[in-house]
Amino acid sequence: MAKLIKNGTIITAADTYQADVLIEGGIIQAIGTGLEAAGAAIGAEIIDAAGKYLFPGGIDPHTHLDMPFGGTVTADNFETGTIAAAFGGTTTIIDFCLTDKGKPLADSIQKWHAKSAGKSAIDYGFHLMIGEINDEVLAELPDIVHTEGITSFKVFMAYKNVFQADDGTLYRTMLTASELGAMVMVHAENGDVIDYLIAKALAEGHTEPIYHALTRPSMLEGEATGRAAKLAGLTGARLYVVHVTCEEAVKAIAEAREQGFDVWGETCPQYLLLDQSYLELPDFEGAKYVWSPPLREARHQDVLWNALRTGGLQTIGSDQCSFNFNGQKELGKGDFSKIPNGGPVIEDRFSLLYSEGVAKGRLTLNQFVDLVSTRSAKLFGLFPRKGTIAVGSDADIVIFDPAAERVISEATHHMNVDYNPFEGTAVTGAPISVLSRGEFVIRDLNFVGRAGAGQYVKRAPYKQPVQAELATAP
Amino acid sequence: MAKLIKNGTIITAADTYQADVLIEGGIIQAIGTGLEAAGAAIGAEIIDAAGKYLFPGGIDPHTHLDMPFGGTVTADNFETGTIAAAFGGTTTIIDFCLTDKGKPLADSIQKWHAKSAGKSAIDYGFHLMIGEINDEVLAELPDIVHTEGITSFKVFMAYKNVFQADDGTLYRTMLTASELGAMVMVHAENGDVIDYLIAKALAEGHTEPIYHALTRPSMLEGEATGRAAKLAGLTGARLYVVHVTCEEAVKAIAEAREQGFDVWGETCPQYLLLDQSYLELPDFEGAKYVWSPPLREARHQDVLWNALRTGGLQTIGSDQCSFNFNGQKELGKGDFSKIPNGGPVIEDRFSLLYSEGVAKGRLTLNQFVDLVSTRSAKLFGLFPRKGTIAVGSDADIVIFDPAAERVISEATHHMNVDYNPFEGTAVTGAPISVLSRGEFVIRDLNFVGRAGAGQYVKRAPYKQPVQAELATAP
Amino acid sequence: MAKLIKNGTIITAADTYQADVLIEGGIIQAIGTGLEAAGAAIGAEIIDAAGKYLFPGGIDPHTHLDMPFGGTVTADNFETGTIAAAFGGTTTIIDFCLTDKGKPLADSIQKWHAKSAGKSAIDYGFHLMIGEINDEVLAELPDIVHTEGITSFKVFMAYKNVFQADDGTLYRTMLTASELGAMVMVHAENGDVIDYLIAKALAEGHTEPIYHALTRPSMLEGEATGRAAKLAGLTGARLYVVHVTCEEAVKAIAEAREQGFDVWGETCPQYLLLDQSYLELPDFEGAKYVWSPPLREARHQDVLWNALRTGGLQTIGSDQCSFNFNGQKELGKGDFSKIPNGGPVIEDRFSLLYSEGVAKGRLTLNQFVDLVSTRSAKLFGLFPRKGTIAVGSDADIVIFDPAAERVISEATHHMNVDYNPFEGTAVTGAPISVLSRGEFVIRDLNFVGRAGAGQYVKRAPYKQPVQAELATAP
Amino acid sequence: MAKLIKNGTIITAADTYQADVLIEGGIIQAIGTGLEAAGAAIGAEIIDAAGKYLFPGGIDPHTHLDMPFGGTVTADNFETGTIAAAFGGTTTIIDFCLTDKGKPLADSIQKWHAKSAGKSAIDYGFHLMIGEINDEVLAELPDIVHTEGITSFKVFMAYKNVFQADDGTLYRTMLTASELGAMVMVHAENGDVIDYLIAKALAEGHTEPIYHALTRPSMLEGEATGRAAKLAGLTGARLYVVHVTCEEAVKAIAEAREQGFDVWGETCPQYLLLDQSYLELPDFEGAKYVWSPPLREARHQDVLWNALRTGGLQTIGSDQCSFNFNGQKELGKGDFSKIPNGGPVIEDRFSLLYSEGVAKGRLTLNQFVDLVSTRSAKLFGLFPRKGTIAVGSDADIVIFDPAAERVISEATHHMNVDYNPFEGTAVTGAPISVLSRGEFVIRDLNFVGRAGAGQYVKRAPYKQPVQAELATAP
Repeated sequence: MAKLIKNGTIITAADTYQADVLIEGGIIQAIGTGLEAAGAAIGAEIIDAAGKYLFPGGIDPHTHLDMPFGGTVTADNFETGTIAAAFGGTTTIIDFCLTDKGKPLADSIQKWHAKSAGKSAIDYGFHLMIGEINDEVLAELPDIVHTEGITSFKVFMAYKNVFQADDGTLYRTMLTASELGAMVMVHAENGDVIDYLIAKALAEGHTEPIYHALTRPSMLEGEATGRAAKLAGLTGARLYVVHVTCEEAVKAIAEAREQGFDVWGETCPQYLLLDQSYLELPDFEGAKYVWSPPLREARHQDVLWNALRTGGLQTIGSDQCSFNFNGQKELGKGDFSKIPNGGPVIEDRFSLLYSEGVAKGRLTLNQFVDLVSTRSAKLFGLFPRKGTIAVGSDADIVIFDPAAERVISEATHHMNVDYNPFEGTAVTGAPISVLSRGEFVIRDLNFVGRAGAGQYVKRAPYKQPVQAELATAP
Repeated sequence: MAKLIKNGTIITAADTYQADVLIEGGIIQAIGTGLEAAGAAIGAEIIDAAGKYLFPGGIDPHTHLDMPFGGTVTADNFETGTIAAAFGGTTTIIDFCLTDKGKPLADSIQKWHAKSAGKSAIDYGFHLMIGEINDEVLAELPDIVHTEGITSFKVFMAYKNVFQADDGTLYRTMLTASELGAMVMVHAENGDVIDYLIAKALAEGHTEPIYHALTRPSMLEGEATGRAAKLAGLTGARLYVVHVTCEEAVKAIAEAREQGFDVWGETCPQYLLLDQSYLELPDFEGAKYVWSPPLREARHQDVLWNALRTGGLQTIGSDQCSFNFNGQKELGKGDFSKIPNGGPVIEDRFSLLYSEGVAKGRLTLNQFVDLVSTRSAKLFGLFPRKGTIAVGSDADIVIFDPAAERVISEATHHMNVDYNPFEGTAVTGAPISVLSRGEFVIRDLNFVGRAGAGQYVKRAPYKQPVQAELATAP
Repeated sequence: MAKLIKNGTIITAADTYQADVLIEGGIIQAIGTGLEAAGAAIGAEIIDAAGKYLFPGGIDPHTHLDMPFGGTVTADNFETGTIAAAFGGTTTIIDFCLTDKGKPLADSIQKWHAKSAGKSAIDYGFHLMIGEINDEVLAELPDIVHTEGITSFKVFMAYKNVFQADDGTLYRTMLTASELGAMVMVHAENGDVIDYLIAKALAEGHTEPIYHALTRPSMLEGEATGRAAKLAGLTGARLYVVHVTCEEAVKAIAEAREQGFDVWGETCPQYLLLDQSYLELPDFEGAKYVWSPPLREARHQDVLWNALRTGGLQTIGSDQCSFNFNGQKELGKGDFSKIPNGGPVIEDRFSLLYSEGVAKGRLTLNQFVDLVSTRSAKLFGLFPRKGTIAVGSDADIVIFDPAAERVISEATHHMNVDYNPFEGTAVTGAPISVLSRGEFVIRDLNFVGRAGAGQYVKRAPYKQPVQAELATAP
Repeated sequence: MAKLIKNGTIITAADTYQADVLIEGGIIQAIGTGLEAAGAAIGAEIIDAAGKYLFPGGIDPHTHLDMPFGGTVTADNFETGTIAAAFGGTTTIIDFCLTDKGKPLADSIQKWHAKSAGKSAIDYGFHLMIGEINDEVLAELPDIVHTEGITSFKVFMAYKNVFQADDGTLYRTMLTASELGAMVMVHAENGDVIDYLIAKALAEGHTEPIYHALTRPSMLEGEATGRAAKLAGLTGARLYVVHVTCEEAVKAIAEAREQGFDVWGETCPQYLLLDQSYLELPDFEGAKYVWSPPLREARHQDVLWNALRTGGLQTIGSDQCSFNFNGQKELGKGDFSKIPNGGPVIEDRFSLLYSEGVAKGRLTLNQFVDLVSTRSAKLFGLFPRKGTIAVGSDADIVIFDPAAERVISEATHHMNVDYNPFEGTAVTGAPISVLSRGEFVIRDLNFVGRAGAGQYVKRAPYKQPVQAELATAP
């Protein structure tokens, strides 16, 4: 049904202004004043957004829903996860499709479609994990990019003997991605060394959650980040470093960009707000705070905020990967290396960044929109369909009350998990209503959408700069 | 008169989309499809922009019109200069109001109003040069910021015994500006050393134009840039470095930003496209290419482009400061130090950046808009009135034909000067029509505005972050 | 009288070995085993040094004896200062000859000869302060270098309106020094800004000693150091940065050296061992710790030690400049800017570096010798006459007991000043006996030399690399 | 037989002076003047060295003699290689003992003893290659360090599927070495990526020698160097990077040292004098210039020289690894990856560094000695027995004529290989006579030693700083 959202303040990655928004067919038709007649002509419902911000729907470029890991599976699937996302102001996610060595990639993609189709309450796309490069893989990729619309490949530099690929595979993935106009994403930690450090810690009887952090020093993330960035420089590939947590990695990305390499970085709310000390909470509570890379010493937080402010990092992902404390995180009692990695952030990503970023004066409103939505849309081939409030774009809109105050809690969140890592955190501002392609998913704080309403979105290759592999590498 | 611009592709710093633009009272009222009825209701003239880009009018943050220098005065005044600017797609300039030590600042500002009022064809504002800080200056500044709307102060680190201020003055200007929410701009070169190098070169009989460049090595620009940036860090001031030309300065700005200092940088088309070898042209032609800082070795150009692409530099100014070759530049025959510094760039700034930046694949359309217009509007307190195409903003719009091809030439340019430093340069794309506050200034390549139609714009202080002088400096 | 020092362990900047040393005519004649017969032939006195180190006599490249400053004069003159130095293991000093603008340099040098001749107990040379460059100065300098043997010129970037020279003067000094084979030394702090910060602090009623540190932030030392280093790069001059105190300056020197600039750095024991908190001692005791640059936050100490260890800094000076607490430091009661700058370190420089450096495992014995003696001899044109234990060199030798333990105290020191900034510091190792040109000055902890025994030493220009001013600077 | 070398100028890493040297029992007994009587008493032969430099015998820390590689074996064995070394002024080498995975290390060491015993004309020691860490290896190492006197372990980051170890193995080697006081050496190139680049080049039909360089870009050396340095920082190990060739690696080492990591670097004459263009010589001549890492673009040479001059690199190795052009290098005709890597440099290392370094003014005499001898002695546990001219040290002495001029040529060299990569290079200065433990090996340009006269030298662990693995890594 057509809608006319009146009196709101529209925020895009560039602009801040008051105007009305006319929506029809799920698309933004006009923005301005004096649109009442036009609205009436198409029977538009009037929505009053006085005193509210209108943000483009959040885009979460980094989620793991219904994902098997370490003998269990994430607590949130595409239904619970996307409903929670919608509550939080996110209208599109890009989930990681895991693959198996030796099996067709297409099979994995079909598996991921099976997980999500009919379940997702908001629109979604997939990244594809690349674990090996061989003739079969090379044969499948063009179709995956151009027909399936999967234009980003993920390579793991950590999780030895599980997901980890070696540098030759990373390099080849970059070359291939570059040719296809796809982007390469890396989890950047030195998995070989971490693997040994974990074994050593366990052998020495160190089993507590804090050893998860102590066996993954930030220098090993900085090292791997710089390594991947250099390979991107050599191949001319576009590289996106997921979940950057530390000064060393921020510096490595800055150095690469100053040399003209096409390198981008994402961080997550947990690295901006939490720190390594949480892993030392008693009664195994530290296990709730086990992410990889791990939470860092608090001094890194200012570095991350400054990078967001000055363009050194460009997006915010949730790295949603929820496991219940009871029954799942507990798998790691007596052996920190068996704690399932990850946590539930998909719902609060948007609000946390607004509250800590905008409300506390660290970011402008426009920077916030760019980080939480627009830049991901641009990098991942969703723009201008997603990621902005502009004529012709999908009417994915968050009606946001900047004056609202709330406290994050497991008691009130909508994720299917038994704790919230930000429990008790007071946030300023709240998404009141959320539209996906012109229809309310959340209305006045209530879920009014439905599982399965979300559509799979094919993504465009990025327009590749004319930049072949460097002359020195044949 | 109301207007409806139809079928154009709107480009902002964030967005790219096709929609119609409805203008009334000089303001953008609506953007969308289906606006014909609303347009008709207010008698809007229909303008067809099919196949054209609609850009926000360019903002040139760095001009010197009707300015005395070295015993002469610039060839372009506010009439010829702003008409040329309009031809080039620029709808707002910010000119530098020079001041005299020992005299009231208000007098200088009145002098600048006298030069511009009734003459300027487009809107304009002023920066204020600060040559000294004393009780009288401190007493005048609050009113200048809050009533006069001049919210940026320029300090020269070069031009010894003319404009140059010492570091104590720069520091005090930063402190004061910070308190008032004004920004500090610097011309960053080490004037003391340059002054000696010039005297030395002349004493050794080196009088040719190339010695202008040889007596101003890039290391001295990098040095002064880093020095100013460190003082900005100490005072918490916002610093804007004008006309950045070289790798050393780009690095100094990057380092400052990585440390969290509030530092920004501008470059100019001449530094992106021309190089030091031009100063060696025979028959004193090198004098046409005398800017300060000087043109650099060509290797610096890639560094500047990369900084524009990755956010290391944020704006493009023209540093318009035109002198005729005959009769003015000639003052420096036999003594390069007497060549009036500067050149005519106000008209071609916009097109050169489009052609070399966007058409050659170095910048996206959105980056182009940000650099040539939006970022200056934001930094200099003109946003959102200027710098974007959004509902509620001034209808300063450039209708731009991306398919046009033209060749820059003194024979066809509109500046009041007898040469063009980009003579013969082929550019892709051209501003066809230009609107200022909803009225055509240029229509189908003809000037249809009038001298005096431009308005003086008061600018807002920037919203100062809560960041006092560092704890270590009382 | 000839001597044969037996059984000691000789330490040079390169070597560590046990051997006997035969001395005749003030010169080392032979080193080895089996020298008894040769010794007997010339009637050499046998000195037993079993269990002792034999170090080359310390060279203190940075002293201010009998120096007027701020309306008073240092507490130590060439007699008391050099006797204390000898007690501490130092056998040569290079003192700073201050000059007056507008007066012949030769007059100042004669004044300094008058202060020292007949007074100094150990050998000494002079650096020359350069406050201005003009034809008279240029005319005097060749003779000063080649006849007077003063081959290092000091320029102050701080102490505005007192010693401070501008950057043009610094640059010209570098050019001239380069031609003469002399080295340029700088006191690197941004004097213009500091001058204002002091005035501002006082205007705000901040009069306590701690404001001495707070008005001289380390960033201003880093800035000035980088500035001087860049000018050294442009001119090809050799630059020596005195009393480096902070990470910013260490980095600036490292960057310069990586670019191939001929830049060297000195630090002092006070910056290695003390920190800014000393300036907050009650009862005006903080005044005892007023040096310029000031003591820094403790975190800088590790950076300085690491630079000593890895070659980033090359020498240790005392910056001896003693003022009594009573009657002299007290001049600054109620106005920190009137506290005479400096402190008594000439006596303990050598022992502090040994104890904190070698005994605590931060430096090797050879590094210690290089820092405390050899490198200064080489940089300042005293080598190989001074700075080593080698055949043909002056027999300036310290017989050092590494097992001795003592506590530094005003009660036992030999400087003519009423406090010791290292009061109560326990040090390992002690100079037991000290020879200057083969004669005991200190023997078994007693002074057995005489005022006036020290000789003025002319120093050689450094062998200038074939490296003219850079091509870009005429 | 005892000797008295008269009238030479002794050069050590610190000193330059004229004195006589008395030798008995292979050891330096005394240095000085007036030693004739002592010499006569022991029947010392008088050697006149007037006008000559006396250098400590060169120490070559990096040789591969009698080494199998790629199906062939090096052209020089311990006899021909060490005789050539002696001609060149080198009196000690440290050769790399290769090991086999799964076999006892002791077996490999015995194999290396078998290759060298009775053959080597000069003293020699071994480094030990570590290809894996397991319980057997860990059990063997203490004895190897403390009894066998092998105190440096080499890990390859390149040569995939041949020598290459993964990062976990490197890390564990560092931990173990640190505990034992042994040093870790790395060949730093990213072997995984290089392995692919080689395969890709060959698949594309690129078989010529230049592709050896093009498949090993300098960025991959810089990457691996930085990676190893960070692991050294984490473990607290001492790291020595062999054959550094490029700016990227020099910077990585500098950054590590500035952070306090215990990292050192070696380069080789070929990287200082030759460049990548040699690989393009016609008629397969490029194969003569195949080293790994490869020769680089000429711009890197200045960076290497500056690093030697300023302490950024600390030693010079030959990386001696000779293969005949005919029959051996030719194995790579039609497939550059089959060209045996390496070249003959053991003989000219010393002279090339003197001629290009000292004679051309890039290095001081003392720096030369440090680089070519002393620093290796210190780093590798040979000091003070080797590496200096001091009382008590082995009388390993080079009598060097700085005025000699010669031209390097295969026609006159003493290595058992059919080409010389420096063919035709004119060098200033020549070793005239060379003593090993007091006996002539080379006398007046003739070999007078014998194969088998060289002794195996056990080396000391370095005195480990009290520095455990960083707190963040358990």
